[in-house]
Amino acid sequence: MLKNIPKRLSPELVKLLMEMGHGDEILLADANYPALTNNSRVVRTDGIMVPELLHDILELLPLDTYSDYQGILMQIVPGDTAVPSSGPPVWEKYRKEIAGVFPKYNLKSIERQAFYEYSHKCFAIVQTGETALYGNLILKKGVVL
Amino acid sequence: MLKNIPKRLSPELVKLLMEMGHGDEILLADANYPALTNNSRVVRTDGIMVPELLHDILELLPLDTYSDYQGILMQIVPGDTAVPSSGPPVWEKYRKEIAGVFPKYNLKSIERQAFYEYSHKCFAIVQTGETALYGNLILKKGVVL
Amino acid sequence: MLKNIPKRLSPELVKLLMEMGHGDEILLADANYPALTNNSRVVRTDGIMVPELLHDILELLPLDTYSDYQGILMQIVPGDTAVPSSGPPVWEKYRKEIAGVFPKYNLKSIERQAFYEYSHKCFAIVQTGETALYGNLILKKGVVL
Amino acid sequence: MLKNIPKRLSPELVKLLMEMGHGDEILLADANYPALTNNSRVVRTDGIMVPELLHDILELLPLDTYSDYQGILMQIVPGDTAVPSSGPPVWEKYRKEIAGVFPKYNLKSIERQAFYEYSHKCFAIVQTGETALYGNLILKKGVVL
Amino acid sequence: MLKNIPKRLSPELVKLLMEMGHGDEILLADANYPALTNNSRVVRTDGIMVPELLHDILELLPLDTYSDYQGILMQIVPGDTAVPSSGPPVWEKYRKEIAGVFPKYNLKSIERQAFYEYSHKCFAIVQTGETALYGNLILKKGVVL
Amino acid sequence: MLKNIPKRLSPELVKLLMEMGHGDEILLADANYPALTNNSRVVRTDGIMVPELLHDILELLPLDTYSDYQGILMQIVPGDTAVPSSGPPVWEKYRKEIAGVFPKYNLKSIERQAFYEYSHKCFAIVQTGETALYGNLILKKGVVL
Amino acid sequence: MLKNIPKRLSPELVKLLMEMGHGDEILLADANYPALTNNSRVVRTDGIMVPELLHDILELLPLDTYSDYQGILMQIVPGDTAVPSSGPPVWEKYRKEIAGVFPKYNLKSIERQAFYEYSHKCFAIVQTGETALYGNLILKKGVVL
Amino acid sequence: MLKNIPKRLSPELVKLLMEMGHGDEILLADANYPALTNNSRVVRTDGIMVPELLHDILELLPLDTYSDYQGILMQIVPGDTAVPSSGPPVWEKYRKEIAGVFPKYNLKSIERQAFYEYSHKCFAIVQTGETALYGNLILKKGVVL
Amino acid sequence: MLKNIPKRLSPELVKLLMEMGHGDEILLADANYPALTNNSRVVRTDGIMVPELLHDILELLPLDTYSDYQGILMQIVPGDTAVPSSGPPVWEKYRKEIAGVFPKYNLKSIERQAFYEYSHKCFAIVQTGETALYGNLILKKGVVL
Amino acid sequence: MLKNIPKRLSPELVKLLMEMGHGDEILLADANYPALTNNSRVVRTDGIMVPELLHDILELLPLDTYSDYQGILMQIVPGDTAVPSSGPPVWEKYRKEIAGVFPKYNLKSIERQAFYEYSHKCFAIVQTGETALYGNLILKKGVVL
Repeated sequence: MLKNIPKRLSPELVKLLMEMGHGDEILLADANYPALTNNSRVVRTDGIMVPELLHDILELLPLDTYSDYQGILMQIVPGDTAVPSSGPPVWEKYRKEIAGVFPKYNLKSIERQAFYEYSHKCFAIVQTGETALYGNLILKKGVVL
Repeated sequence: MLKNIPKRLSPELVKLLMEMGHGDEILLADANYPALTNNSRVVRTDGIMVPELLHDILELLPLDTYSDYQGILMQIVPGDTAVPSSGPPVWEKYRKEIAGVFPKYNLKSIERQAFYEYSHKCFAIVQTGETALYGNLILKKGVVL
Repeated sequence: MLKNIPKRLSPELVKLLMEMGHGDEILLADANYPALTNNSRVVRTDGIMVPELLHDILELLPLDTYSDYQGILMQIVPGDTAVPSSGPPVWEKYRKEIAGVFPKYNLKSIERQAFYEYSHKCFAIVQTGETALYGNLILKKGVVL
Repeated sequence: MLKNIPKRLSPELVKLLMEMGHGDEILLADANYPALTNNSRVVRTDGIMVPELLHDILELLPLDTYSDYQGILMQIVPGDTAVPSSGPPVWEKYRKEIAGVFPKYNLKSIERQAFYEYSHKCFAIVQTGETALYGNLILKKGVVL
Repeated sequence: MLKNIPKRLSPELVKLLMEMGHGDEILLADANYPALTNNSRVVRTDGIMVPELLHDILELLPLDTYSDYQGILMQIVPGDTAVPSSGPPVWEKYRKEIAGVFPKYNLKSIERQAFYEYSHKCFAIVQTGETALYGNLILKKGVVL
Repeated sequence: MLKNIPKRLSPELVKLLMEMGHGDEILLADANYPALTNNSRVVRTDGIMVPELLHDILELLPLDTYSDYQGILMQIVPGDTAVPSSGPPVWEKYRKEIAGVFPKYNLKSIERQAFYEYSHKCFAIVQTGETALYGNLILKKGVVL
Repeated sequence: MLKNIPKRLSPELVKLLMEMGHGDEILLADANYPALTNNSRVVRTDGIMVPELLHDILELLPLDTYSDYQGILMQIVPGDTAVPSSGPPVWEKYRKEIAGVFPKYNLKSIERQAFYEYSHKCFAIVQTGETALYGNLILKKGVVL
Repeated sequence: MLKNIPKRLSPELVKLLMEMGHGDEILLADANYPALTNNSRVVRTDGIMVPELLHDILELLPLDTYSDYQGILMQIVPGDTAVPSSGPPVWEKYRKEIAGVFPKYNLKSIERQAFYEYSHKCFAIVQTGETALYGNLILKKGVVL
Repeated sequence: MLKNIPKRLSPELVKLLMEMGHGDEILLADANYPALTNNSRVVRTDGIMVPELLHDILELLPLDTYSDYQGILMQIVPGDTAVPSSGPPVWEKYRKEIAGVFPKYNLKSIERQAFYEYSHKCFAIVQTGETALYGNLILKKGVVL
Repeated sequence: MLKNIPKRLSPELVKLLMEMGHGDEILLADANYPALTNNSRVVRTDGIMVPELLHDILELLPLDTYSDYQGILMQIVPGDTAVPSSGPPVWEKYRKEIAGVFPKYNLKSIERQAFYEYSHKCFAIVQTGETALYGNLILKKGVVL
């Protein structure tokens, strides 16, 4: 552990976040996500949920404020009755954390199968312990000047 | 994730617990423990505290009920005023978890410098996110019949 | 060995099952299957037959109940007289084990050459000791919530 | 699988048996044996019991008939009431298999702690699925002329 | 060395033969064959000729009797005057060895350049010490039941 | 680069600082120090001087305030006329940086040959670009609570 | 450190520069460049700016004077108001350094997205500590006769 | 060093020459050739010129006398005034060495850019210390009978 | 294969012989020798007997004519009735091959257990296919001038 | 190749010379020296003699002018008649090269067997192509200020 680095972040994950460059994207995937099938760089944070991990990561990771989006969600499958009409509850937490660092944020969404494909090109996938529905979140890294 | 395996346990940690044999010992170390200095097999569980990790591990790991001890704590340094006279509060949690699976348990304690030395011979060290004082706990594996 | 984990499952196999995600598929291949030719991730369980391995795996592995199939068999080659008209006897064992955890299961089948091709995309192949005809079985992993 | 090689033996195990030389010893250890702690070369055969593995290995492995012993057992701990006065039942199976290939065999025994130490110097340890008491057996390889 | 395994076969080669599955093919190549250029799995048996190696391998390796061929030779280049009209003498030895285990065998042949290409897809290439003309031989593995 | 992490620190160095535990020591060595001869973990920061590196590291690394020293210098060789009577000028910079985070600091010193020996047991050596005389500095890591 | 080799250059970087051949290109990338995403050979020089690194590299690296360009810059995005009309200030430093070794130099420029693509084919990327806008510079190696 | 093996040839290079097969080609490249960019197998012989290396290699390496060429040169770029009308002087040395072992030799030449492409498919590239113009030479291996 | 290098010698073995220096020793061990137990560098030549391997090696390897011995045999165990009074027949072959290159040779012998110990310090062990009694032979490398 | 770096020095050797620190020693060994037996870091320069290699290395490597010796030779074995009374001729070349960079140099010598032992502790051994008697030379690295 070090000062100024949130305790939940492992040395391996911080190193990886440091190695990402402008425009590189990282997927915070839920615990059931087929991570190894979709990316060769996988870091696990078993037992850690996405909202708390997101909070910690955003203390370090600058979002790409030059892009027309800062993050990507997986679209709700049409007709999925498990999701309330107000959307997946976990999304509210994500929006709150992201707004905390960049109020003018925009989150895109991508259809489910296309999302899996898209995650092949992410810099890395973090396999979290999240079990909420539609809990996957991609973040786009910005610059430090 | 799999059925019957607690969600907080990583694939790497479960594999390691399976590979341990009768009498092998594993140290659940606190977040400040010099783990890599004292053992070549280190698994990290950043952000996870020992009580919850202990709870999960004891669902899988049999304690050595043939031994005259099932676990080892680090002795309180004489004169350490940061510890209440009733002992480190976190120890109560450890005792409760262990008693839950083996009521007749016995926990030894080892003097601080000797504890570091002892951890060289453990099967592995788990570097947890625990920050409680005297939070290190060694478990001795038993048999499955 | 650990409590709650069937004894026949190796540490390597359990780790692999834990690393699979929703929708990932694993092939329990017979002892003559060209495993290394069709997948780069191969785990061997020489001497263990598929029915008993299947029984153990299903204690841990959730099947994909959202999919329109939970498993895949290799189609009987037209005119193969070695197979009784009631189908390969080993399939009855597979169906019984799978029904035991998901009675509404559906098993697809794929033509022999296409099956080999398909197994390239499996998460992994387990090379078992099974020698029964048409003994190959693909399982599709579901979610743990 | 190959002709003349028992099906339960994995490619890795056969390769290892071939690489052993005259006088090298291999431990068939029970499922609870601390194998990785006592040897850097460990092969696992989860789910396979020692008697059947022994039977198969003896089809290939020549015993050292020049030595005054062909195998080593772990001595019964004095006062261990779990063992019948006639000795551990599994030993009868071992003796029968070994006598089948070398009727004039001799099995030594070594005190428990010394046995663990001794296994450090074995060529390798096979971690079997055996759960019988006193199920560990060391074999001494002979020559093929 | 082990009983029942021909002495000329190395541990590495036996392991590889065991890992092959039904339908996998292995090329016994002559000493001048560009092996590393055509396959990433190459085992060398310098000083050993194909007929004696073939004899030993066929003690272990079942040929694919379900296929319409059990082996493949390299076609004689039209106009090659170095080959007697009765064909390369070494082929007689190959035919004799193969007939010894499967009298109804069939050997295909493939044009020289196509043969090189074909060997890319073999499970492995054994670089032998054979120096006879047209000494390359591909074997197709069958099943053990 | 990340927010809150000084730009001069590489991902590899930050990971290493995170992996150190309470009491582990790290040597910031000058550009001529025989680093690889004295430690197997060496990180290079060619072109970076110790004072600026020290400044950055102390933003993250807690010093061990429980110990009777927080750092170690190499003793001035008796009779070394290259050093002013006030001591090596670079030491003033070190003292200022360390006092900035822990005013009650204490720096020990070790005789030159003993210092080389001592550095064998450091967690790691950072080979900096420092060329000042007596520029080597060992830091002792404390805890984050 | 060695005589005649600038102190800021690491052993790894010098080795890499030596291994480049005629026509090979190396990217001196700014600190935010997505280096690992665009090349598998990445060397880091955290804390070192491009002008000083360029100065040092040009003491060793011959530029390709046979080519119609010796370096490549990233084109200014049309409408980018952060750049003065005279161009990115850092470019003046680059031009001065390059002119110092080859007055008749020519620097090409490539559109931003195409530049990222182009860097895939560079021999390597050096991830510097540069934070100036449009700070990326590709150098083309010449010959030593 | 061994008897009968020229002293200038390294163990690594001799091993590589032995592993080549009939028709495999090896490039003896000059000191400025972009070797690592064009082949993944590169052996260096810094300080050794091609004529002396060629002399030594031809003591061991049989040329392909069945092919319509035994070696390949890089074509002179049209209009290159640095080359005398009689051709690059170093070619005379190559021709003399090759004629010494196969008087009826034929050397092809390939246009410069095509030559770079062609070298991708060579078995390996030897990066020599040669600095003569047009000093690159590809050799085609023959057979030993 | 190469000219002047005996065909039975593998690329790996020739490389190893080249890497040996003056005074380094290599053991040509019989097929039952516990090679991996006694040395970490082991090369196998299954199916090749020591006399023919020795013949080939001596075409390349200079013996140490400065030493008071050029080779070492394993002493005959006192009372071993399997050996004719004239000594192991295979020794005659060894003596003939060695005399062929150095008529004034001297072969030492070492007691059996001491021989095993001694082989730990050999440069490497070649595990041959030799099955003759007392077939082990150590060679001491000389110099090439 | 790079400007200012002698052409005979390989990238690997230059990297190694850069990584050495003050007081580290490197052995330039002759072609018959048992290098791999005496050090785990070995770089080969087959075909290059020590005098020319020494010349090139001294362009880069500073000698340790603070030490009471800058290099070490192997003592002449008493009674060795192959050496002229004026000493090994190659030593004159060494002295001339070293005097060229440090006229007040001192070369120690060490008895032959002790020299072998001593070379275990060198930073590395360069196996050159030198065949002159007593051609081994150890250099002690100094500092760059």
